[in-house]
Amino acid sequence: MFANTMPRYEILSDDAMAVLDRGWRRIVTEIGVEFLLDEAVEEFRKAGQQVVDDNRVILDPEFLLEQVAKAPREFELQARNPERSLQIGGDHMAFASVYGCPFVREGDVRREATMADFENLVRLSQAFPELDSPGGTICEPNDRPLDSRHLDMVYALQTLSDKPYMGSVTSGPNAADTIRMGQILFGSDFERAPVSISLINVNSPLRYDDRMLSALVEYARAGQAVIVTPFLLMGAMSPVSIPATLAQQMAEALAGIALVQLIRPGSPVVFGSFLSNTDMQSGSPSFGTPESAIGLFCTGQIARSFGLPWRSGGGLNSSQTVDAQSAYESLMTMLPTFLAGANFVLHAAGWLEAGLVSCYEKFIVDIEILRQLRHEFTPLEIDEASLAFGAHEEVGPGGHFLGAAHTLERFRECFYRPLVSSTENFERWKGKGARDTATRANEIWKSKGARDTAARAGEIWRKTLDEYEQPPLDDAIRSQLEEFVVRRRTELGD
Amino acid sequence: MFANTMPRYEILSDDAMAVLDRGWRRIVTEIGVEFLLDEAVEEFRKAGQQVVDDNRVILDPEFLLEQVAKAPREFELQARNPERSLQIGGDHMAFASVYGCPFVREGDVRREATMADFENLVRLSQAFPELDSPGGTICEPNDRPLDSRHLDMVYALQTLSDKPYMGSVTSGPNAADTIRMGQILFGSDFERAPVSISLINVNSPLRYDDRMLSALVEYARAGQAVIVTPFLLMGAMSPVSIPATLAQQMAEALAGIALVQLIRPGSPVVFGSFLSNTDMQSGSPSFGTPESAIGLFCTGQIARSFGLPWRSGGGLNSSQTVDAQSAYESLMTMLPTFLAGANFVLHAAGWLEAGLVSCYEKFIVDIEILRQLRHEFTPLEIDEASLAFGAHEEVGPGGHFLGAAHTLERFRECFYRPLVSSTENFERWKGKGARDTATRANEIWKSKGARDTAARAGEIWRKTLDEYEQPPLDDAIRSQLEEFVVRRRTELGD
Repeated sequence: MFANTMPRYEILSDDAMAVLDRGWRRIVTEIGVEFLLDEAVEEFRKAGQQVVDDNRVILDPEFLLEQVAKAPREFELQARNPERSLQIGGDHMAFASVYGCPFVREGDVRREATMADFENLVRLSQAFPELDSPGGTICEPNDRPLDSRHLDMVYALQTLSDKPYMGSVTSGPNAADTIRMGQILFGSDFERAPVSISLINVNSPLRYDDRMLSALVEYARAGQAVIVTPFLLMGAMSPVSIPATLAQQMAEALAGIALVQLIRPGSPVVFGSFLSNTDMQSGSPSFGTPESAIGLFCTGQIARSFGLPWRSGGGLNSSQTVDAQSAYESLMTMLPTFLAGANFVLHAAGWLEAGLVSCYEKFIVDIEILRQLRHEFTPLEIDEASLAFGAHEEVGPGGHFLGAAHTLERFRECFYRPLVSSTENFERWKGKGARDTATRANEIWKSKGARDTAARAGEIWRKTLDEYEQPPLDDAIRSQLEEFVVRRRTELGD
Repeated sequence: MFANTMPRYEILSDDAMAVLDRGWRRIVTEIGVEFLLDEAVEEFRKAGQQVVDDNRVILDPEFLLEQVAKAPREFELQARNPERSLQIGGDHMAFASVYGCPFVREGDVRREATMADFENLVRLSQAFPELDSPGGTICEPNDRPLDSRHLDMVYALQTLSDKPYMGSVTSGPNAADTIRMGQILFGSDFERAPVSISLINVNSPLRYDDRMLSALVEYARAGQAVIVTPFLLMGAMSPVSIPATLAQQMAEALAGIALVQLIRPGSPVVFGSFLSNTDMQSGSPSFGTPESAIGLFCTGQIARSFGLPWRSGGGLNSSQTVDAQSAYESLMTMLPTFLAGANFVLHAAGWLEAGLVSCYEKFIVDIEILRQLRHEFTPLEIDEASLAFGAHEEVGPGGHFLGAAHTLERFRECFYRPLVSSTENFERWKGKGARDTATRANEIWKSKGARDTAARAGEIWRKTLDEYEQPPLDDAIRSQLEEFVVRRRTELGD
């Protein structure tokens, strides 16, 4: 997996960190955090924290820090193929596909997502080495019954990919199903290290709902990893101020992480961040904004100060198609993700339209961006040999290096090789596009009819699916998984 | 103008810097640099440097460093409107439009550039405060005679904009014309500080041609600023190695900068960098690559080590249209440009198709990117008030901030407001696009027919041109400029 050993881009001074530190401490002590699950409230009460209004917990900052200190700085996340197991934390960066989209886009068609889309997107996630995990709800399989679709999703994640996966968080029982399926898949390895990582969103501001808490409790008890993520669109879920939002994010995340540690000290947990802003003109969420990039730089520094692995970033954007906006917004998030060294990067491929859409072509564009950034954030080796003085001697002033011995020995691997980007010149390139006679006569070239980035991306994902090979799985395990899914589906009434 | 007071992203260790230092020293002492102009060779010979093969100069590294040390660390570049004068160097970043394109793209039409395009692009450069200069050859006015078009261009730059401009470098006499027109426009202010900045490209590897040298000599004698830029597409003009290319870049740039200082000690000069790589499959130049981003990080650190202002970056890309590739490649160059703190950023708006095309829509997309990055690289104020604790008290757990007093007081200015990006949701957005009945019936929505980023950008540049107001200019000065242009055009035989 990718280790980012380049410098981190940090922008918070010691003074700024001290202000933020006072900020979260005041929030947890003067306002507190709501936990809409009795079991969670009881954990805090037992630990000596003050409960007001039934479910609001006033938290002692030092108590929170003591709990947080029990969380591992770094942990292994198992894959059923041991070569694909991950380290979460430190310099490591793990990349997972988009998560939670009700719609898909395929070329010009936008429609409700189906189980077939889910499976295709898991296959694509498996096929590209730039992704370490298909994630979880890569799109909503709307053609499957709501009560049991989590079983279909986990089964697809477990069988179509041999990379680590994310579990269901739609309820405690669904989380328990995910855990049971992990036990079947991993057998005796299950106890060794977590086999799933699941996304617990805070119902920000300052509230954890019962659904997410029930899932958190199940996963924490089973030693399965969770990502505790304040869900912060500034202006809606937090104040219209980055510092205020960072303080709130710390309060919310630390409270949830402390709960995990109360349930099972040492259980693996990730400091999550999903921080952007509302477009105050339209009320819509904005992604790929300067504010979200600043949030990323700061959050990395903050999470490291607590010694916690952290999650953020991705190819986020608000665009409706795979156009210029989708690309610059995505990179405006993804490049800071690398600069800030996020350890777990959800939504790393396929995100479109503010997360409503899981898009096949965008998936490919995002893979290109990931490949580029992995290359860019690989330290440059600078030694005597890299100076290639012999090439300068050979070529001399005014010559060219295309035929130099140094070039001929290295030309295949010396530079990044693009997946979808084109460097073809205009004359060659337009020959590949569709042009009708009328437009040709007018010397007007319909750029939109030709192979722009999205069109090239469309060819790539189709070819990748054609060439996909399902990773092998022991027949007995597959049968057990199938039996479990069938039995539970019946029990759930579908 | 914009001052970038955020941290610089530096990736070169002391050891790496030492290797590169040995690299450029060996190149200038063992190979030397060719100067295809006797006058330039004479300057070096007079200064005690060894000349071999008529025009190759073997350079003493310590002599080069002595000359380079005479260059100012920072200098003023005058605009005829004093409010638009620039500081080149230090934390300042100046942004200029695309430069040198033979073609333009306007929507779906790609064609040879004309003088009307040149004027329009200068007007757009004048209109957007994100640009500090229209640059110079913003596109080639192919409908004007080759021998005198430099006069048309300088006249347009001087009269349609009141921002600093770049001069002609197509010959010594053309540079002299630019200087004379600067004297007319600035009168007695001309001697105070440079009124033009001009781009001297090295004919890399290790060669300065006579045309560029003649222009360099003219500008240096007149105390006008020049940007000495090694033109390095790795694999063609330099070895397929970033360290080798950085060493070559240092050798070439320092040699040219030393020549400027020999001609006029203390004359303003900028360490230029134009560093990307060849696509070794197609032989085409690649832009927005990981290699070019790494080059940017390194070059900033190197230029600062010599105490020189530096030029690099821009919205570079290889794409043929304003598609996703054009956007991610542009940002893959522009975000590192900010991280590395380039002092003069040419090609900051309008660049398309590897620099062959000056594109109206891309111009607008690049303005958006510049606006975002200027916002992103403005230090965050983190103090007690920014924590907005009152908003948290008002809203409490589970509430929302849209109606909070803190929000209502700030919602207009609290976040970056996009120029061309859309955050409209799909249902609203698709209503604005063209959809025919057949596609509607199929629930297929032709994304390409609707208002994607490029289409919205097209509306913006047209509106901006409609609203453009020419900056006032003294009639007597305008007459003198016109007389000069008419006289010189006649002398040049057009």
